[in-house]
Amino acid sequence: MRPSGRQPSDMRAVTLERNVAMKAEGSCLVAFGNTRVLCTASVETSVPGWLRGKGQGWVTAEYGMLPRATGSRTRREATAGKQSGRTQEIQRLIGRSLRAVVDLELLGEVQITLDCDVLEADGGTRTASITGAYVALVDAIRWMDERKLTKGQALKDSVAAVSCGIYRGTPVLDLDYLEDVEAETDANFVMTGSGKFVEIQGTAEGAPFSRDELQSLMALAEQGIGELSVMQKAALGV
Amino acid sequence: MRPSGRQPSDMRAVTLERNVAMKAEGSCLVAFGNTRVLCTASVETSVPGWLRGKGQGWVTAEYGMLPRATGSRTRREATAGKQSGRTQEIQRLIGRSLRAVVDLELLGEVQITLDCDVLEADGGTRTASITGAYVALVDAIRWMDERKLTKGQALKDSVAAVSCGIYRGTPVLDLDYLEDVEAETDANFVMTGSGKFVEIQGTAEGAPFSRDELQSLMALAEQGIGELSVMQKAALGV
Amino acid sequence: MRPSGRQPSDMRAVTLERNVAMKAEGSCLVAFGNTRVLCTASVETSVPGWLRGKGQGWVTAEYGMLPRATGSRTRREATAGKQSGRTQEIQRLIGRSLRAVVDLELLGEVQITLDCDVLEADGGTRTASITGAYVALVDAIRWMDERKLTKGQALKDSVAAVSCGIYRGTPVLDLDYLEDVEAETDANFVMTGSGKFVEIQGTAEGAPFSRDELQSLMALAEQGIGELSVMQKAALGV
Amino acid sequence: MRPSGRQPSDMRAVTLERNVAMKAEGSCLVAFGNTRVLCTASVETSVPGWLRGKGQGWVTAEYGMLPRATGSRTRREATAGKQSGRTQEIQRLIGRSLRAVVDLELLGEVQITLDCDVLEADGGTRTASITGAYVALVDAIRWMDERKLTKGQALKDSVAAVSCGIYRGTPVLDLDYLEDVEAETDANFVMTGSGKFVEIQGTAEGAPFSRDELQSLMALAEQGIGELSVMQKAALGV
Amino acid sequence: MRPSGRQPSDMRAVTLERNVAMKAEGSCLVAFGNTRVLCTASVETSVPGWLRGKGQGWVTAEYGMLPRATGSRTRREATAGKQSGRTQEIQRLIGRSLRAVVDLELLGEVQITLDCDVLEADGGTRTASITGAYVALVDAIRWMDERKLTKGQALKDSVAAVSCGIYRGTPVLDLDYLEDVEAETDANFVMTGSGKFVEIQGTAEGAPFSRDELQSLMALAEQGIGELSVMQKAALGV
Amino acid sequence: MRPSGRQPSDMRAVTLERNVAMKAEGSCLVAFGNTRVLCTASVETSVPGWLRGKGQGWVTAEYGMLPRATGSRTRREATAGKQSGRTQEIQRLIGRSLRAVVDLELLGEVQITLDCDVLEADGGTRTASITGAYVALVDAIRWMDERKLTKGQALKDSVAAVSCGIYRGTPVLDLDYLEDVEAETDANFVMTGSGKFVEIQGTAEGAPFSRDELQSLMALAEQGIGELSVMQKAALGV
Repeated sequence: MRPSGRQPSDMRAVTLERNVAMKAEGSCLVAFGNTRVLCTASVETSVPGWLRGKGQGWVTAEYGMLPRATGSRTRREATAGKQSGRTQEIQRLIGRSLRAVVDLELLGEVQITLDCDVLEADGGTRTASITGAYVALVDAIRWMDERKLTKGQALKDSVAAVSCGIYRGTPVLDLDYLEDVEAETDANFVMTGSGKFVEIQGTAEGAPFSRDELQSLMALAEQGIGELSVMQKAALGV
Repeated sequence: MRPSGRQPSDMRAVTLERNVAMKAEGSCLVAFGNTRVLCTASVETSVPGWLRGKGQGWVTAEYGMLPRATGSRTRREATAGKQSGRTQEIQRLIGRSLRAVVDLELLGEVQITLDCDVLEADGGTRTASITGAYVALVDAIRWMDERKLTKGQALKDSVAAVSCGIYRGTPVLDLDYLEDVEAETDANFVMTGSGKFVEIQGTAEGAPFSRDELQSLMALAEQGIGELSVMQKAALGV
Repeated sequence: MRPSGRQPSDMRAVTLERNVAMKAEGSCLVAFGNTRVLCTASVETSVPGWLRGKGQGWVTAEYGMLPRATGSRTRREATAGKQSGRTQEIQRLIGRSLRAVVDLELLGEVQITLDCDVLEADGGTRTASITGAYVALVDAIRWMDERKLTKGQALKDSVAAVSCGIYRGTPVLDLDYLEDVEAETDANFVMTGSGKFVEIQGTAEGAPFSRDELQSLMALAEQGIGELSVMQKAALGV
Repeated sequence: MRPSGRQPSDMRAVTLERNVAMKAEGSCLVAFGNTRVLCTASVETSVPGWLRGKGQGWVTAEYGMLPRATGSRTRREATAGKQSGRTQEIQRLIGRSLRAVVDLELLGEVQITLDCDVLEADGGTRTASITGAYVALVDAIRWMDERKLTKGQALKDSVAAVSCGIYRGTPVLDLDYLEDVEAETDANFVMTGSGKFVEIQGTAEGAPFSRDELQSLMALAEQGIGELSVMQKAALGV
Repeated sequence: MRPSGRQPSDMRAVTLERNVAMKAEGSCLVAFGNTRVLCTASVETSVPGWLRGKGQGWVTAEYGMLPRATGSRTRREATAGKQSGRTQEIQRLIGRSLRAVVDLELLGEVQITLDCDVLEADGGTRTASITGAYVALVDAIRWMDERKLTKGQALKDSVAAVSCGIYRGTPVLDLDYLEDVEAETDANFVMTGSGKFVEIQGTAEGAPFSRDELQSLMALAEQGIGELSVMQKAALGV
Repeated sequence: MRPSGRQPSDMRAVTLERNVAMKAEGSCLVAFGNTRVLCTASVETSVPGWLRGKGQGWVTAEYGMLPRATGSRTRREATAGKQSGRTQEIQRLIGRSLRAVVDLELLGEVQITLDCDVLEADGGTRTASITGAYVALVDAIRWMDERKLTKGQALKDSVAAVSCGIYRGTPVLDLDYLEDVEAETDANFVMTGSGKFVEIQGTAEGAPFSRDELQSLMALAEQGIGELSVMQKAALGV
C-alpha cells in the first residue's frame, strides 16, 4: 500500500555515520532512506549575551538545505537574504529537542551549535536532523569531557525523532516524501531514550483527526523511536 | 495554587467583541483574561501567484504585537527589519488552523488575510488569536455571501484553540503569563467545534512528559475548546 | 460643504482616554473622529549610545499602522522588512514635537519611547498621535516623579497638533480622509499650550498657496490647538 | 555677527553650472557657498506601476551624500543597507517640490528622476538640491521637447528653495553649517518663481517660535528665493 | 619544505565522483586533498529576464560553505542575511569560467545553475569548485542531449582550475590552507583543456611579485591543469 | 582602428587634481579620458575590531557610482539595499592594492578609508580609482606626518593601475567603454612604481587567450603604469 512497499510500522533504512567532518568536535551523517543530513557539532567558548556570566552553557541549532537536495532546485536562503519561516521553525525545534537532554549547568559556559545541512531531502528531514544531531552532540561532549571542560555528566538522556501520519486512511511510520505530500495528518514526535515525550507536533493537513487516530500515531512513534535509540547506542558504542 | 486563584480546569474570562474595526470585512477583539488581540479579516481579490487561475481561494494570517503589549517594551519588528522566528511560527499556525475549516474551492478566487495584533499580552496570545480570528473570518465570509461572492457554504466547521500545561506538577487549562514561564510542559491545542484535532503542539519546557500527562492535557483542552465553541456561537448569534 | 457636514472651523469629536495599556508607564487612546491611535509611553533606563554618560535623557517615538486601519489592507511593514519613508517622517516629527516641551536634563538618564499605533485611520493620524502621545508622556513622567526618578519638573509646556487645509477653495480645520485626498494644500501645525509654534509643515498638494492662505490656516490651527490643549488638561485633571 | 561675516539677509555665493554630466538629459552643479550638489535629470520611458497606462508622467528624486562630504566621514548608505529616515525625508521633499511646477499630463508617459548627490555639505543641502534640480529638470524637458516627446508646455513655473533660521536671536537667511547646528529655529521654504509657496517646513530646534518670528523668516525667504529665481533664469538663458 | 611533504609541483590527491546527488541533472563530489566540494548542476527552463526570448541559454553558479567546513565555525550566510563579498566574487568567477566553454546559443533557452557547496575547506575551494562543476555540467548537458533539448554540441572545450603561490620563496602548485595563509603571492588560474587561459587572478598577499615569478606560477598552473584535464576525462569516460 | 582614434599603446588623457574635497585629509579627482572618479581619504582613529590593540593600522576602500554616471540610469545601491557583487569585488581590489604599498605598523592604530565615487563612467573606473586613491592616500599620510601621527615612513612604494585588452584581435592599452564591451579579453593590472605586480586579473570575455597574448598585455600594462607613476609623482610634487 505504501509507495515504497513498506509495512505501516516499517521505518526506512537508517544509518548513522560518525566523524564525517574532520574539523568539527562531533559529526554524524544520518540517513533515513534517501534523506541524508550532515550534522556537525561545534563547541564555542562564547555564549549568547543574555547567558553571559551565569556559569551555564547553551545548545542551539541551525538548519539548511542544499539547493539541489530537492526535486527541483530550491532558492538558496543566503541569496534570498533570509531564512524562511519553515527553516526557523525547524531549527528552533532541533535546538529545543537537544536542550531537553542536556544539563546546561554541567556543560559549563560554552555554546554547542548543531548544524544540520540536508544533502538530500526525501521527507523527514527534521526528524533525521534531531536523530543525527544527538549523535554529533554526544561526540562533542565526549571531546569536552576528555579536555575536562564539562563540570560533570552533562547528558541526561538520549533523544531521537520520527514522523508518523495517516496515509490513505492508515497510520504509518516514518513518512517519505511521496507519503508526506498526500498524508491527511502529519505528526512529528521527539522522545527520549527513556520513553518520554519532548515534543509533539501534529497537524491536520487534509482532514481533522480524532483522539483515536492520534493514539495510533503515538504508538507507532514510540516503537520507531525505540528502534532509533537502539541504533544511536550502537553507533556510539554504548 | 494557580497565581490567579483559578481551579486547574478554569479558563480565564473570555470575551469576543465583533465589528470593532470599521473598515475590515470582519473583525473581533478577543480577550482571554488580560490578553487582548485585535483580529481583522480582509477580503482581497488577488490570490498568491501559485494559486492564480486555479479557481480556488486562500486563507492566510499575519501576527504582530504592539511594542508595549509586554511588561517591558519589545522592539518593533518593522524597525528590526524582519519578523522573528516566533512570529512566523505563530502566523503559520493561525493560517493552517483556519484553513482547516474552510473549503477553499467554495471560497472562490479570493484571499482572506487574518491580521492578529496583540494589544496586551498575558500568555496565550496564539490561542486567543485563533479563537478570535475564526469569528472575524465568519463575518468576512458572511460579507462575501451577502454579495454572492462565494460559491457555496465555504465554512465546514468552527475552530478554536487553547493552551494547557503542567504547572507545579498539575495539569492546568489556559496558562497565563506567570504560569507559562514556569510550566514544565506547555501544549497548544487547536480543535474544531465538532471535537476533532487540527493541531497539537506539545513541548517539554522543563522535563519530558509522559503519555499519561499528555492525556490529561488533552482532556483539559477538549473541555476548554468545548466552552470556547459555545462562546463563539453565542458571539456569532448561531 | 464639508463631507462630514462640519463648519470650516469645526474639529471632529476628540476623546483622550488614559490608562488603556496595563503595562505601560503612560498610555492614551486618542480619537479624532474615526481616527483612533493607541499611544503608549515606555520608560527605559538605557539611552542611545551617543547620549550615554551625559546625564541627560531622551524622548523618541515610533509610529505604526495596523494593516486594516485603512480602507484596503496595507502591507505590514514588518513583512516588507522596513519602515516606509512616510512612517519614518512621521515618527521623527512626533519625537521632535515632544522633545520641544521636555527638559531633557531634568529627565535624568532615561529614554521615554512613545509608540503610536494607529488602530483606525481616517486622516490626521500624525496630529492625533502627537496630541495623544503628550498625554501618555505626562503620565509616564508622573510615574517617574512618584519614584523620584526625575531631577525636577521635566515638563516645560504642553504640546498638541492639528492639520488644516484648503478644501475646495476654503480653509478648513482638522481634515478627515475624504478632505485630505482632495485638498489643494495640506498643513500640519504643532503648537505648545502657551501658543507658540513647534513645527509647521505646509505642502501644496495641488496648487501653490499664497501668504494670505497660509495666514488663514495658521489662524485655524491656533484655534484648534487651543481647544485641544483644554481637552488635554481636562483629561489629565490639571 | 554671523560666523561668515554675512548680513542677516545675505545669501551665500550661489553658482549654477549646467551640462556637467555628459550622459544625463539634464544636469546642474549647484553651489550655495561651500555646499555643492551634483544634480542630474534622467528621462526614462517606464513610469511607476500605479501610473502605467494613465497617459501621464512622473517626476521623482533621490538624494545621496558622498561619505566625505561631511567633516567626519559618514557611513555609506549602500553599506548600511538602507537609506536613513533623513535621506528619505529629503528626497520626498525634492520630488514634491518639482512636481509642483510640472504638468504631469503634458509630460507624457515618462519618468524623470532627479538625482541630487552632495559632494560637499556645509548646510542647506536640501534647498540647494531643489534649486539645482530645477535647472537640470528644465534641460531634461528641453531635451524632450526637441525630440517631440512632450505633449505641450509641461513646465508651469520655476521653483527654488532656501533655508532661514533664528540664529542668536536674529532671523537670518541661508544658514550655513555653523549656524544650522546652533539655530533655535530652522525653516525651509520652497517657492515658485511667481512668489507662491510650495512647501514650508519650520522646526523649533531650541525654543518654540512665535507667529511674528515666522513672519520675519517668511519675508527673508521671499527675498532669497526671488534672488535665486533670477539666477536660475540667467543660468538657463531665459 | 611544504607542510604536507609535497614537492613544489605536486598536486594533492584529486578525486571526482559523479552522480552523488540523486535529484540533480548532473553532480560531482570533488576532492583536492582534504578540500571537498559537492557540485550539482540544475537545468531550469527559465532564463534571467534580460535573456528572455533571445533563444539562448545561460550558465550561472552559486557558492556556499557549510558552517563547519572550517576550523572554527563560520557564520551561516542565510543567518547573516547576505552573501559576503568573497562568496559573490567566487561564484561570479565559477560562472564566468564555465560559460567560457559553453556555446550558449546551442544550449537553447535554459539556465543551468551550478551549486558548489563546500563540505570541507582546506584551501583551493574555488579551484576545486570549477574543476568539479565542469564535470557536473557535462552530465547535465548529456542529460539534455538525451532528451533532445540542446540544439547541437553545446560544449566547446573542458575547463579546470588550480591555485599556485610563492610559499617561503618557492613557487608551488595547489596550495593547501597552511600554505595559503602564509604565501607571499597567491594566484588562481582557470584554463581550458586545450591549454588556453580563461581567467588569471594573481594577488600579492605579502610582497609584490616580479614578471619572472609570475612566469613560474604560470608554468606550474599549465602542468597542474593538464593533469586535472586528464582526470576529468577519465571521470567522464571520454 | 580604436573608436577613439588612439594607437594601441596610447593611454587616454589622464589628470590628477588634488585637494578637491575640503573636509577630507586627502583627495584627488582623477580622470582617465571621460571617466572621472572622486577619491577621498579619511583618517579615523578607530580600526576594525579584529585589529584593536595590535598597534597597527588599516587601509580600506569603498566604491560607488552616481546613478547617472552611466549611459542609462543605474539603480542607486542605497535604494536597492545592498552593494552589488561587482561593487564589492572592486572595493576589495582597491583596498588590497593600496595596502600593498603601506607599512601598516608604521601607520599606527588608525584606519584610512579611501572612498572612490565615480562621477562619470567610460570604462576603467577601477583602475582610475586605484590610481587616484593612491594620490589621496599620500596626502592623508602627509597630513598625519605633519601631526606626528605616524611612527615612521609608512609608504613603501607608489601604486597605479591600468586595464588592457584584446580588441578586434589587437592588444590595446586603457580600454574605454566602447572597447570594453567588445573586447575578447579584458585584464586589469596593478603595479608598484618600482615595476612589480600587485594584482593581475585577466578574464576571457569572448575567447580564451594564449600565453603570448597575455605577455603582450603585460608589456602594455608595464608601459602604461610607468606613465601613470610619472604623472602621480608630478601631481604630488615629488
